[in-house]
Amino acid sequence: MNFSINTDVLLNNLLVSQKALSTKTPAPYLQGIKLEVSQNEIILITSNSDIAIKISIKDDSLSVEQTGEALIPGKVFVDFIRKLDKGIVEISVIDNNVLRIHSHNTDLSLNLQNVDDYPDIVFVMNDQPIKLESKIMKSVIKQTTFATSNIENRPILTGVNIKVEDNKLTAIATDSFRLSQKMIKIPDNLENMNVVIPGKSLDELFKVLELNLEEILIHLNHKSILFEYGNILFQSRLLEGNFPETSRLIPVDFPIIIKFKTNDLTTAIERASLLSLKDNLNSIVKLYLKPDNVVEITSNSPEIGKVVEEVYPVEKAIGTPIKIAFSSKYFLDALKTFNSEEIFVKFTGEIRPFIIQNSDDSGLVQLILPVRTE
Amino acid sequence: MNFSINTDVLLNNLLVSQKALSTKTPAPYLQGIKLEVSQNEIILITSNSDIAIKISIKDDSLSVEQTGEALIPGKVFVDFIRKLDKGIVEISVIDNNVLRIHSHNTDLSLNLQNVDDYPDIVFVMNDQPIKLESKIMKSVIKQTTFATSNIENRPILTGVNIKVEDNKLTAIATDSFRLSQKMIKIPDNLENMNVVIPGKSLDELFKVLELNLEEILIHLNHKSILFEYGNILFQSRLLEGNFPETSRLIPVDFPIIIKFKTNDLTTAIERASLLSLKDNLNSIVKLYLKPDNVVEITSNSPEIGKVVEEVYPVEKAIGTPIKIAFSSKYFLDALKTFNSEEIFVKFTGEIRPFIIQNSDDSGLVQLILPVRTE
Repeated sequence: MNFSINTDVLLNNLLVSQKALSTKTPAPYLQGIKLEVSQNEIILITSNSDIAIKISIKDDSLSVEQTGEALIPGKVFVDFIRKLDKGIVEISVIDNNVLRIHSHNTDLSLNLQNVDDYPDIVFVMNDQPIKLESKIMKSVIKQTTFATSNIENRPILTGVNIKVEDNKLTAIATDSFRLSQKMIKIPDNLENMNVVIPGKSLDELFKVLELNLEEILIHLNHKSILFEYGNILFQSRLLEGNFPETSRLIPVDFPIIIKFKTNDLTTAIERASLLSLKDNLNSIVKLYLKPDNVVEITSNSPEIGKVVEEVYPVEKAIGTPIKIAFSSKYFLDALKTFNSEEIFVKFTGEIRPFIIQNSDDSGLVQLILPVRTE
Repeated sequence: MNFSINTDVLLNNLLVSQKALSTKTPAPYLQGIKLEVSQNEIILITSNSDIAIKISIKDDSLSVEQTGEALIPGKVFVDFIRKLDKGIVEISVIDNNVLRIHSHNTDLSLNLQNVDDYPDIVFVMNDQPIKLESKIMKSVIKQTTFATSNIENRPILTGVNIKVEDNKLTAIATDSFRLSQKMIKIPDNLENMNVVIPGKSLDELFKVLELNLEEILIHLNHKSILFEYGNILFQSRLLEGNFPETSRLIPVDFPIIIKFKTNDLTTAIERASLLSLKDNLNSIVKLYLKPDNVVEITSNSPEIGKVVEEVYPVEKAIGTPIKIAFSSKYFLDALKTFNSEEIFVKFTGEIRPFIIQNSDDSGLVQLILPVRTE
């Protein structure tokens, strides 16, 4: 193997590739990047227990003298390329066991691992991928993954449930105390599908999507999901097991509806949550819709003190006065998923789940279970 | 106590005050801010085991209805004021044991501690403070504190030695493997002084100096040092014990002198240090001035590989070829203290301390002990 390429081109692709590098692993080959050099193309392959990434680099600056493949130590290679001066970097394999990286007055020799040790990873494409604007994919991830469980005793809840049915794609995450559901329209000639993607995989995909390319293609299979994004193939394993059926959890009729300015409600809950943050990130805040249509947000810590916030709904609230208590963190997490200036909070009763929705029909529902207080 | 003031004015002063708040302390009063309100002024006092800060606030927006003093829980108070909307905040004490903070539609009640529990802190000024441009004080701190020891077995080395002699102020820090010395000129009618200030105190002072006021006054005493900076008094305890006499450690004659572009040398050492960073932050790098006047920077890790960097001195080096090995971290730390495009590295021999100096006479010397290698 012997080729040269623009340093920045290589680096920008390595930074994506790195997202699937294992740093701690009993399998040393997973700390490596598999480099495949053919006549007009370099391929970078990385993988860990959740995801695998395959990147194809074709660039005017690429000049291949000799094709070949190698398994190179990932972290030190990326760190080194990152520190190189701009220009061209020459990369070659010497004596089958050393990678030489040369640029300007810099020479790095890296001991290679045996490329035959690297597992053969199949990137599974299908004929009918779902095409989405990548900014829509980003918002689906941002609006759902935060609500996955990070407790491993119900592994299925650490993932996001993706369902394709008729002309809808629905993403659902829940940790059993709250639920986030986002629905978007897609072409209706697709096969029905119901899979669960690890939340961590989606968090990594979100970072890759910062490249802000136009489109993303989703290749859904029963064993894996593959996102095709420019020159990048990003594949994730799926979680096995049945995701709970959540459609009946979301109430339909709401006798009490309050419309807020998103910012007013956010700052009031943030301030109210400060009192108990010291001991417990899940501080409990109370919301009280008073008969005079003013909403009181309160929090009380006998040891430290008490906060009372008054928030004025945008319009006269619908329904009767209500008192409800909830985790301020869950409420703030949910509010962050909305971009709109105004939001609706809709209640069915004091000890029943309530939901937050956008003023326009964005297909997004955030559901939160209240907590009982005396 | 009952007063109102512009929220931003209060917040900006609290953020400074907070630098001396203890978060973990067996003495609960050290988690508090002592608030003294007189007719035209608010005073904030905070202190921990190293430093004490006293801030005087006089502002057009200040309106005092009733004077008084209180000991308020520091962290939650600052966090709350930080989250308030812009405007005026009203603060009052109710029933001697509750602080009420009111702004717009927000009400916070905080349980007060007993203000009599707060220790009486004397801020010691003297008649002849040393006046410095505050940006000079910032660079003295930045150029020395990093070289203090963070190992507590020789506590005196965790501090920076400040000496006032004739018309010079000298700041010295050493962890016994490296030494940083900065000398600046001051008026020569000052009393001689030799004290050691905890490095941590200076790190906190550095953050306060981000306000970028013009001047700072230094009130040196035998028991404490007080920095007067606008409306802020920042006092630190001194370390007891004798700082080692370091003047004879710094060589005077240098048979070998190499002039580098600072950036060339920095990036070469950074790249060379990458190989061993994985195991040990103190990676060892070798410098070799070759007979052909090229400098080789190398690093070798049998397990991972080898880096060879060639650096071209700005001018032909003075002296004979030399090979020397050193901690890359120490060298990079030292290089960061120079702003100049070019620097001199001066050697007396392969196993003798070497120094780094600016090309102009900035009064700054960085000394590093080499390491022996085979």
